[in-house]
Amino acid sequence: MGMSTFTNCFLSAFDYKTAKYVVAENKKVGVLFRVVQLSIIGYLIGWVFITKKGYQATEESIQSSVITKVKGVVLTNSSDTGLSLWGPEDYVIPPHGEASLFITTNFIETPNQTLGICAESFKVPDGRCQNNTHCLHGEAVTAGHGIKTGRCLKDGNETNGTCEIHGWCPVERSQKPHVPLLGKAENFTIYIKNFIKFPKFSFSKSNVRETNADTYLQKCIYDEAAHPYCPIFRVGGIINKTGHRFQDMAQTGGAIGILIDWNCDLDKGSSHCHPRYSFTRLDKTSVSSAGYNFRYARYYKNAAGQTYRTLYKVYGIRFDIMVHGKAGKFNIIPTIINIGSGLALMGAGTVLCDMVLLYMMKQRTLYRQKKFESAKSGPSDSDGTSTQAGTPEGRGPDSDENRKMLRHKEDVPMTQTSN
Amino acid sequence: MGMSTFTNCFLSAFDYKTAKYVVAENKKVGVLFRVVQLSIIGYLIGWVFITKKGYQATEESIQSSVITKVKGVVLTNSSDTGLSLWGPEDYVIPPHGEASLFITTNFIETPNQTLGICAESFKVPDGRCQNNTHCLHGEAVTAGHGIKTGRCLKDGNETNGTCEIHGWCPVERSQKPHVPLLGKAENFTIYIKNFIKFPKFSFSKSNVRETNADTYLQKCIYDEAAHPYCPIFRVGGIINKTGHRFQDMAQTGGAIGILIDWNCDLDKGSSHCHPRYSFTRLDKTSVSSAGYNFRYARYYKNAAGQTYRTLYKVYGIRFDIMVHGKAGKFNIIPTIINIGSGLALMGAGTVLCDMVLLYMMKQRTLYRQKKFESAKSGPSDSDGTSTQAGTPEGRGPDSDENRKMLRHKEDVPMTQTSN
Amino acid sequence: MGMSTFTNCFLSAFDYKTAKYVVAENKKVGVLFRVVQLSIIGYLIGWVFITKKGYQATEESIQSSVITKVKGVVLTNSSDTGLSLWGPEDYVIPPHGEASLFITTNFIETPNQTLGICAESFKVPDGRCQNNTHCLHGEAVTAGHGIKTGRCLKDGNETNGTCEIHGWCPVERSQKPHVPLLGKAENFTIYIKNFIKFPKFSFSKSNVRETNADTYLQKCIYDEAAHPYCPIFRVGGIINKTGHRFQDMAQTGGAIGILIDWNCDLDKGSSHCHPRYSFTRLDKTSVSSAGYNFRYARYYKNAAGQTYRTLYKVYGIRFDIMVHGKAGKFNIIPTIINIGSGLALMGAGTVLCDMVLLYMMKQRTLYRQKKFESAKSGPSDSDGTSTQAGTPEGRGPDSDENRKMLRHKEDVPMTQTSN
Repeated sequence: MGMSTFTNCFLSAFDYKTAKYVVAENKKVGVLFRVVQLSIIGYLIGWVFITKKGYQATEESIQSSVITKVKGVVLTNSSDTGLSLWGPEDYVIPPHGEASLFITTNFIETPNQTLGICAESFKVPDGRCQNNTHCLHGEAVTAGHGIKTGRCLKDGNETNGTCEIHGWCPVERSQKPHVPLLGKAENFTIYIKNFIKFPKFSFSKSNVRETNADTYLQKCIYDEAAHPYCPIFRVGGIINKTGHRFQDMAQTGGAIGILIDWNCDLDKGSSHCHPRYSFTRLDKTSVSSAGYNFRYARYYKNAAGQTYRTLYKVYGIRFDIMVHGKAGKFNIIPTIINIGSGLALMGAGTVLCDMVLLYMMKQRTLYRQKKFESAKSGPSDSDGTSTQAGTPEGRGPDSDENRKMLRHKEDVPMTQTSN
Repeated sequence: MGMSTFTNCFLSAFDYKTAKYVVAENKKVGVLFRVVQLSIIGYLIGWVFITKKGYQATEESIQSSVITKVKGVVLTNSSDTGLSLWGPEDYVIPPHGEASLFITTNFIETPNQTLGICAESFKVPDGRCQNNTHCLHGEAVTAGHGIKTGRCLKDGNETNGTCEIHGWCPVERSQKPHVPLLGKAENFTIYIKNFIKFPKFSFSKSNVRETNADTYLQKCIYDEAAHPYCPIFRVGGIINKTGHRFQDMAQTGGAIGILIDWNCDLDKGSSHCHPRYSFTRLDKTSVSSAGYNFRYARYYKNAAGQTYRTLYKVYGIRFDIMVHGKAGKFNIIPTIINIGSGLALMGAGTVLCDMVLLYMMKQRTLYRQKKFESAKSGPSDSDGTSTQAGTPEGRGPDSDENRKMLRHKEDVPMTQTSN
Repeated sequence: MGMSTFTNCFLSAFDYKTAKYVVAENKKVGVLFRVVQLSIIGYLIGWVFITKKGYQATEESIQSSVITKVKGVVLTNSSDTGLSLWGPEDYVIPPHGEASLFITTNFIETPNQTLGICAESFKVPDGRCQNNTHCLHGEAVTAGHGIKTGRCLKDGNETNGTCEIHGWCPVERSQKPHVPLLGKAENFTIYIKNFIKFPKFSFSKSNVRETNADTYLQKCIYDEAAHPYCPIFRVGGIINKTGHRFQDMAQTGGAIGILIDWNCDLDKGSSHCHPRYSFTRLDKTSVSSAGYNFRYARYYKNAAGQTYRTLYKVYGIRFDIMVHGKAGKFNIIPTIINIGSGLALMGAGTVLCDMVLLYMMKQRTLYRQKKFESAKSGPSDSDGTSTQAGTPEGRGPDSDENRKMLRHKEDVPMTQTSN
């Protein structure tokens, strides 16, 4: 022991200290522990690595651009305005191909409205009246079409009438066509162009077949098996996929969600990165609250410069196209982390098994005695340690301790064992 | 010891090996360790499980569909064009009920503009001039209304004038009405229909009361306590909730965020999954940069087929409806992981306490000696081990080692202790 | 040892139990272990804390509001309709300043269309015919402009003609202008006002310079270095930043993504929270599928009340403004968790080194013997333990065990020590 304390200390820093274990030859707990170990390893490999691809760095923030285009024309014949031809520029609202588009399937047209005086529609609760006092002058009809003039209009000797209003007259009639006027919209096609980018991996792709796209796109229709890269859908087909019938929806309208899901394993290369389409009806939790409609007006001026308008109340289907995406690529850091924390998990298993061993086994006392070794120091020891301060760690004194502790019982076992 | 090495090895694989501990009867560190343990357990139970619901698998990607409908009419009386009645089809832009809607509260109308020659507005800096050289022919006025013709127009003997432009004339006048022309918009109501879906749990819900919705919705107004499922809001009410006054915003416009937050604990069932509304003003970080306005035009043709238009500069409030959601349901995997990593955390506590014990306690040397047991092998031992290779692990040789190591010091302590 | 079992048990709960280690004076493994330790600490400090700011609670859900405004006018001269002046109210679609805006750069105008009978455009495949049988009466032309009347129109003695249709006549001519009619759009400016909020930290900021914004904004142009808080961009400049040329895009249109990234370290204060702009072309994965266009119509009525319209097919550039954000602020919980799990990771390192030590080192047998201590109990011991149940842990019996195990060598040391 001629080494100086310092060198000794420094060197001892490179002694490998490994935890001392007590081998409890207890097959029960042993098996239990192995089972725990196996299940953790199983979880780590099966779930973390294979299922969740824990060895990949993932990118969730996808950059996406959706461009839509609807094709199809239909000739409508409304009682009010006779023949009229609807093209995409009319029935798609807004007309610029956004990720959220509305296709008109039914409408109520009120042509040639002018500002003037007329009777409020009877369907507006606040518009009804028995006498003029119910029609306060200058007050707007709640959820109605104009401003009350103060008169209550009744035809004949009826008790109930409606307030006279100052507004766009005549007011819109209430009942909508029984058959959707644009029922043929079922055959319209929606072309959904979707470009995605994963900036982190600088990977970008489109849902359109690249090779001679134009000619191909002129006739193809999307089919998961045959034409996965032809993003042209029949409106009717989309509705059917959601489990509803087009003609039912066309009557009062509704909202459809079109999900495009990109789940890309970039370790396998770009060819394994496909869009997955799914369709769901978004506005249907009860019959009462289904439906989708709104109003818009087209304004004209006559030769005299007076304004008049045509009011449209349109029912239709809104398509919301949502793009989700996730890309993963091998990366060393998550791999190490996942393995590490998996192993760390085993600590939990050990705690469990120790509990079982120390509190539930027949020989628990023995095990406890073996597992826990005292570090009590007798009075004589205090100086003992002081003198030994700086000696290489854990030498003689260690067993020296043992001796002291076992002295009082020494003989008994000895005699027992020596004969 | 007649067992063959192999069987022995195999069996010993099912011996449970538990770490051997040294009991340092040091209450200070003991208490410290218990405190650490308790705080970790507290964190695990209190934070991870109760607060963060760590026992649930959660779904963040909510599918949401928002349909809005504004009701209310107002009669405006602008000096330029006299009376005019504004309905939702006019003041809601775009008219189709989207998640983002704009409600006009004030406007400047410039009727009967025709393509022609007139003076640029003085408020455009680039439009001002002292002489023709400042009005380069054919050059567009930066942020202006037309193309310079090359002439500088001044009335009388003023030094400053504005360039003559080729554009829609007359140009829009600069100052906006002092009182918002659609001030009554305060009483308009916005009906927000929101459908959500958590595909992972195939759970869907709406923010509208299901039972006889139609009649109920005709009169109710949202009230957190009384009518949580009546999603009809007064415009004025929304603005007030953000801490601003409607009439102030109406003048120059602004942007309001309406957040709908679904935080659903599906273990408690659908009835515990409620929408929570919150309102915030989005465009207000300094007075200077507040406000929201844009322009649009309505085009007409006169009998001669010449185009003229009415230009509207509209000020108003944009409502952005954002839906966030989170659903959780019990799942065994996250539960185990959280418990496991919680227990693993204790390792950290142990490290800390060991530091204290081994470097800060009075008896540190003793503890260090007890904790660290040497595995030095004397010369005699090398063969000793070789002969014992394959004997059941950690038997006699273990203590055999001890003996060898403590021999050289044996006597000193022994004599000390034996008298 | 007069203490009652209970007190003893209770007190012993506050004995600190520290794992007993075997010091394997094996520099190889020792160094290996230190290396592992260092790399874990390095990872913890370098990656988790410095790079990933693991000591912060982060907020990803940013509340953002984007308001855009385009400025600039251009005089177009189309062969069909002569001069016309385009202002933002015309070429920005939709006109209200949304986060997604479209700027018209090229168009085909088809004025004065009326409902009537004319020949389908030859460019529509389904519109071509050899004879009337190819033009089924009442059938809509797929991707065409009207409803077939049943006649096949050919000029002269050609074999191929097009079906006669009932639709808006004349139909749109097919070829688009060779030079973009709004090529000057390159000099238009887009003003992007972006307000963000991190509700969790109740922090909000804007990308516009606060101090006397109005005057400043009238002339500044965004420049990362000089004017980071002037969010006014030249359209041409944006396109160049994406690595494309404006004039190429203007011809057929395209889609550009403008990303605003807020990465805020709120520990450093608001002044360290800056917007970062980046520009990328979204619709370009192959030449064939690039481009962006749509149609809209303006409706007029003549004195006789008959409807006619002007159809516009517009090509242009769509700008999608996406706002991402992340804010972090110091928080004790993630800090502790990260440190804890970092330390827990060391468990993994230990496992590795133990493997090396116990299976790859020359003296592995010795190490194994030292590391693993048996807890076998002889027949005499079973009652021994039962009698000792409740004695302070790990006292005599512990060494009692030792004795039994080292019996075969006992005498040698004993005699030594007893004299």
